[in-house]
Amino acid sequence: MRGADPAWLPDEVFRPIGSRRTLVRGWGPLVDTVHEEVARACARFGGRVDRDAAPGPYDLLLDLTGSEASEAFTCERAGDLTTVTATGPSGLLYGLFHVVRLGEEAFTGERPRETCRPALALRMLDHWDNVAVHPVMGQVERGYAGGSLFWVDGRARGEPERLRAYARLLASCGINAVAVNNVNVHETEARLLTDRIGEVAEHAAVFRAYGIRTHLSVTFAAPIVLGGLPTADPLDERVREWWARAAQGVYEVIGDFGGFVVKADSEGQPGPFAYGRSHADGANMLAEALRPYGGTVHWRAFVYDHRQDWRDRSTDRARAAYDHFVPLDGEFADNAVLQVKHGPMDFQVREPVSPLIGAMPATRLAVEVQATQEYTGQQRHVCWLGPMWSEVLRFPVRQGVSVGELCRGGLVAVSNVGDDPYWTGHPLAQANLYTFGRLAWRPDADPREILDEWIRLTFGPGAAADLHAVLDGSWRTYEKYTAPLGVGFMVQPGHHYGPAVDGYEYSPWGTYHFADRDGVGVDRSAATGTGFAAQYAEPWARVYESPDTCPDELLLFFHHVPYGHVLHSGKTVIQHIYDTHFEGVEEAEEARRVWARLDGVVDVGRHARVAELFEEQVRSAREWRDQVNSYFFRKSGVPDAHGRRLC
Amino acid sequence: MRGADPAWLPDEVFRPIGSRRTLVRGWGPLVDTVHEEVARACARFGGRVDRDAAPGPYDLLLDLTGSEASEAFTCERAGDLTTVTATGPSGLLYGLFHVVRLGEEAFTGERPRETCRPALALRMLDHWDNVAVHPVMGQVERGYAGGSLFWVDGRARGEPERLRAYARLLASCGINAVAVNNVNVHETEARLLTDRIGEVAEHAAVFRAYGIRTHLSVTFAAPIVLGGLPTADPLDERVREWWARAAQGVYEVIGDFGGFVVKADSEGQPGPFAYGRSHADGANMLAEALRPYGGTVHWRAFVYDHRQDWRDRSTDRARAAYDHFVPLDGEFADNAVLQVKHGPMDFQVREPVSPLIGAMPATRLAVEVQATQEYTGQQRHVCWLGPMWSEVLRFPVRQGVSVGELCRGGLVAVSNVGDDPYWTGHPLAQANLYTFGRLAWRPDADPREILDEWIRLTFGPGAAADLHAVLDGSWRTYEKYTAPLGVGFMVQPGHHYGPAVDGYEYSPWGTYHFADRDGVGVDRSAATGTGFAAQYAEPWARVYESPDTCPDELLLFFHHVPYGHVLHSGKTVIQHIYDTHFEGVEEAEEARRVWARLDGVVDVGRHARVAELFEEQVRSAREWRDQVNSYFFRKSGVPDAHGRRLC
Repeated sequence: MRGADPAWLPDEVFRPIGSRRTLVRGWGPLVDTVHEEVARACARFGGRVDRDAAPGPYDLLLDLTGSEASEAFTCERAGDLTTVTATGPSGLLYGLFHVVRLGEEAFTGERPRETCRPALALRMLDHWDNVAVHPVMGQVERGYAGGSLFWVDGRARGEPERLRAYARLLASCGINAVAVNNVNVHETEARLLTDRIGEVAEHAAVFRAYGIRTHLSVTFAAPIVLGGLPTADPLDERVREWWARAAQGVYEVIGDFGGFVVKADSEGQPGPFAYGRSHADGANMLAEALRPYGGTVHWRAFVYDHRQDWRDRSTDRARAAYDHFVPLDGEFADNAVLQVKHGPMDFQVREPVSPLIGAMPATRLAVEVQATQEYTGQQRHVCWLGPMWSEVLRFPVRQGVSVGELCRGGLVAVSNVGDDPYWTGHPLAQANLYTFGRLAWRPDADPREILDEWIRLTFGPGAAADLHAVLDGSWRTYEKYTAPLGVGFMVQPGHHYGPAVDGYEYSPWGTYHFADRDGVGVDRSAATGTGFAAQYAEPWARVYESPDTCPDELLLFFHHVPYGHVLHSGKTVIQHIYDTHFEGVEEAEEARRVWARLDGVVDVGRHARVAELFEEQVRSAREWRDQVNSYFFRKSGVPDAHGRRLC
Repeated sequence: MRGADPAWLPDEVFRPIGSRRTLVRGWGPLVDTVHEEVARACARFGGRVDRDAAPGPYDLLLDLTGSEASEAFTCERAGDLTTVTATGPSGLLYGLFHVVRLGEEAFTGERPRETCRPALALRMLDHWDNVAVHPVMGQVERGYAGGSLFWVDGRARGEPERLRAYARLLASCGINAVAVNNVNVHETEARLLTDRIGEVAEHAAVFRAYGIRTHLSVTFAAPIVLGGLPTADPLDERVREWWARAAQGVYEVIGDFGGFVVKADSEGQPGPFAYGRSHADGANMLAEALRPYGGTVHWRAFVYDHRQDWRDRSTDRARAAYDHFVPLDGEFADNAVLQVKHGPMDFQVREPVSPLIGAMPATRLAVEVQATQEYTGQQRHVCWLGPMWSEVLRFPVRQGVSVGELCRGGLVAVSNVGDDPYWTGHPLAQANLYTFGRLAWRPDADPREILDEWIRLTFGPGAAADLHAVLDGSWRTYEKYTAPLGVGFMVQPGHHYGPAVDGYEYSPWGTYHFADRDGVGVDRSAATGTGFAAQYAEPWARVYESPDTCPDELLLFFHHVPYGHVLHSGKTVIQHIYDTHFEGVEEAEEARRVWARLDGVVDVGRHARVAELFEEQVRSAREWRDQVNSYFFRKSGVPDAHGRRLC
């Protein structure tokens, strides 16, 4: 393995365990993993670890007492002994990392017995990794951290050590599932399902040692392109048999295979519509094939018309997922999960929560967020997404029910990882990966506490205040200097980096802001607009319906208003645009200054790379500021209240 | 050779010659070519051809009387004999094609003795063909007619028959020089100069048979990248020696080699600036290397800052060529030609004539036009460029001196040809290639007469009126539905097809329109703008300086005016924009209707392809209309005077 950053698991965090005496009790591959972790720490820090009935005394007991599927563990400290007990092997592994996070505290004083278990059973990373390099999208679609950890130039990468280091990082923050290939399944990738399943099995073997199940993205057209059938109709017996045999073939080599991920009838991918079948028909066919083996199908709800006419103001992409899927509530099999993007559009820096979440009580939903920063700075900008994800997960869809509670099918992130030495390209983007895992474990956690944990593990003591200063507000900073007030999509077409205010304005993608000389925004009200606001349960339908009650940060998502419209903040929309864009750049510049003074505190390589990236972030932020301000000044003719130059 | 369209040389046009008795007198390769042409025609149409002193009588005498370099010929008809006489071999070939164009008329009645000679000595096509497929630009940069005729996937194509057919088409319309590779010279292409010169020699041998000399684009950095020298400084002795040897090597295998084409210090290409030397220093060094062999260096004047800050309104790309080169007038060697784009920007559908032309009396200039339709519909739209080129060539730079008269270094077109069966992708784009050749021969020719000639040759009698209806006004039609009033560059970035009104507005390329809610256009006046207007000789400096005298079609190139500004036409600028965009689409639709009725008149394959392309043209024209009108309506707020929907 070439050099890879230890990220939040530097050797030092294992000192408290590695310098003590530990007894590991229990058998099985995950217990072996736990034992290896402790043994490695002891080799470095002079401690001792025993298996089973060796003589004491011990400082730490890691005790597997059963063979359940449970991921829970208990932790307590009494006398001089810290005890972690689990009834299932994964629980023991998570308990070990719990002790790692506690550090010296785990071995100090008394700790009452505490039981920890994940709120969500599935905590998943989807990798949009191509096997063959795609002529436009490259090795990793929307990847900003180098190549793929799994594939290189048409074949499996064959670097199990690196993959094992990755699995360890994921397990340590609670992730228990990965999909190893892009949801856009091209020709080469399709074959992973059949004759190339062996390559997937190699990856699965590595992940298995850290309690992580492997999933595969498959193409709905597989019976045709791989099976030679004349149809992929989900109600055709031959098709169903083909999928049943395909699933059987997969489980013969990957006994704990997680299941399929499917993007169907979306952005050009094939799906059941071609046969006049519903998405439930499609998903259920795959669910049936997986059921005998305990597998799950993740069926993505990202279905919309991507060839829209920009002249048509009645069609609203935001409505699409709800319109397509809500009528199917109750029709999905119990091992089918409908995977819904957190917002109704596509991972913009600010969107309302998708109204689909909460509108399908009889369907298992997974919510999908995007760790890879496609629309949030592409890992050249610092943008810690913890607060955004937390807002989504805590959002009360209706009285007393949050999004986090509705993720019965799990929480999924599109991975931000590649073969970059720092895993995520921008070293500080590691915080997004870590935060995702921890939020998936406990969706109501305070993201700042998670960040604090990440800082402590990654950097040790001493830099926490400055790192919080750089990261805490970085999402809002990014929001300030990019598209304003929830309107979204003012990015360069295709690659989505950098500003182009009209870049998607006359396009077929359904992503418009309708700015003219008088005002800006999309009228999605029921009274005069597309009716999207009415897809929400109360109180949100009412709140979003009127510009008087709509939250400022979503105003332009729901309403077309004059530039002189006064926000709840007391500012006009146009002055808000100017002010936030100046502020956003100032905040980015300030973050760069804070980072500069960490020179000598943070390790050299990491400091240098982040410092370089800050140059690009500040340059890009100024470009955003100037293009957005200039655009709206040219349109509105309203000068800045503070007399600043608008370009 | 796979199938290739005969274009304007179908067999039928050789019937008048081929059905008669011809005597060819003289010796040498071009006379052999002439003889072969006649012999082939006779084999088809039953005539007879003899060499030298065979017994008569004859209908046609093709008589080479000397071995001069002259391209002139005389033609007369007395009694029953038509006689073409030339003192140089090329003249005889051009005389033959002159008789072909005359058709039966050449053999009817009497014809007084007439001497024809080209007004310009160099009539050249530059092929922007890459040897290796470029990852972004492909095999042919800005090519819309398939692959290259010369290169495929890294090597010479090795299809001499196809290339010979091409050479024949070029010679028949008067072209006598080709450059066989892209002016952006990448790694593979650089080596054509040295170890891969043999591949160029193969092409040159084919062209030679039709009186066409071969030129090569070279990289200024060749002494470094090919020669291993530490510098490419044009005043360094080692560098000069390297170029001298390189030129010698070229002439050893291509005795009639034409010379080098150089794009230096432009859009990332290396050049003399790196060594603190002038463009004259650079060009003269290459001229010196070529001089012993009669070669010429074509040094492109397309030098500007392509990393401009869009916020900076004082820098004006239009000024760049003049500012860079006029101070060097008189410094260029006599076998160095400064190759100047016809307009100051980059082949937009409407530009003023470059002020550089006429401002360098002591320098040999070649004017460059673009046959490949990068900005004029990319050979998916019908856009016959004859009227534009003719306007340029007839433009009186100053009292009594036209551009055509100033092309002492020749006229050059960027080729629109590829390996497409119709050569130019769009079959009607063949008219541009033909028109270019004929205008280069006689810059003051009436382009409609040239078009008439092309129609007659290509389609025979019967379709002329409809073809004129489709082609005559097609350039102005294209202008109408695209960027208005000379403002240019409202295209999609990168590939340049289709509208994006703000596509280049906030870019580093120096191509802006500055539209705001009040007005649009670029102030290039001396009084209040960039001063570009003052680069012209009188009367143009005065004419362009004021919006009152500036021609309507260039108004926004020279002035920023309010939407309510009244044109000489009596319309406001905004209403002109709306009207022309509606008209342009209507005209494209009408051209499509006219073409439709040629079904059964024109050959099936050609008719079908053009009909398909008209679908795309009309679709694209509507998209242009709607985006441009919508953009300016949103900005200006001015409704259409005729109440039409502006989207």
